[in-house]
Amino acid sequence: MKNTHKSLMNGIKSLPAFPVVLVTIGENIMVAAAFHFYSFNPPSVMIGIKPEKYSFELIKEKMEFAINIPTVDQLNEVKICGNVSGKTEDKYKLSEFTRQRSNKIDSYIIKECLVNLECSVVHEINYDGSHRWFIGEIQEVHIDKAYRRSDALMFWLGQFRGLGGIIEGLSDEKIIEKK
Amino acid sequence: MKNTHKSLMNGIKSLPAFPVVLVTIGENIMVAAAFHFYSFNPPSVMIGIKPEKYSFELIKEKMEFAINIPTVDQLNEVKICGNVSGKTEDKYKLSEFTRQRSNKIDSYIIKECLVNLECSVVHEINYDGSHRWFIGEIQEVHIDKAYRRSDALMFWLGQFRGLGGIIEGLSDEKIIEKK
Repeated sequence: MKNTHKSLMNGIKSLPAFPVVLVTIGENIMVAAAFHFYSFNPPSVMIGIKPEKYSFELIKEKMEFAINIPTVDQLNEVKICGNVSGKTEDKYKLSEFTRQRSNKIDSYIIKECLVNLECSVVHEINYDGSHRWFIGEIQEVHIDKAYRRSDALMFWLGQFRGLGGIIEGLSDEKIIEKK
Repeated sequence: MKNTHKSLMNGIKSLPAFPVVLVTIGENIMVAAAFHFYSFNPPSVMIGIKPEKYSFELIKEKMEFAINIPTVDQLNEVKICGNVSGKTEDKYKLSEFTRQRSNKIDSYIIKECLVNLECSVVHEINYDGSHRWFIGEIQEVHIDKAYRRSDALMFWLGQFRGLGGIIEGLSDEKIIEKK
């Protein structure tokens, strides 16, 4: 039987869930699950942006972005940021998120997020698709001592979720050095 | 204060968790959390492999791979596959996983995994780091009707976790079409 786009998309839909992050570029906030680490050395992450998004214009212009990690308790704020375009709306005004000056890049970071990673774009992945992916080398890290991985907000097509408990492994305290 | 590799790596360590997948190439099985979707159109995924891994040789030679999604109940089998190299050990013999012929590629898929995605490599990301990332276009999808996203096994540096419940959104039945 020939595979259709719909049948192959079921494979993408079957993926479990990914962390939701808030990508801040300039004065904008974009909600994304298209986010992963890229490399441990140098420490780098990557984000996928649809070319029709306002953030796509911004990242091409500024070549930098920040990753802000929200918690399950911030779902409403996340939804507010996901439901409008930063091209016409000020998401900081609509949500309860507060702008904070970053140290190493020109974009704002979100004060209420307990982790912020300031990144410079070092590579745009040169392969077409629904998203364009950008690799960012981490320039500065902010981690609040109240941060716990367990509070993360997860998402994949159609579902927001929490993260389950630790089945095996170390506590956050043994893994992440906080200030 | 100048940032060190250690302080920047704390940013990577603070990421919440990603789905664990079993990447099968030829007769080998590799455990990976370095995995994400790449594009909805055409439906594509990407995996990151350290160049020193046996799977790196294999993917360069075969230019294809399969993604097999394990459940929390399969943690022991996952750990068996993660603890040895397929260069010297037959992971199908060591674990309780069973080889199954795939339809569109030459690699085996894992029978006990309820989701299998057969993929052809269409692009190797041309940017150096601890991992090399390969984009694979999905050629064939197998989803068992017993599959539930909620049963996924999650991992990030130092911790295996389950996935939390749905906070908001549709049931799996409304999202994923199963056979």
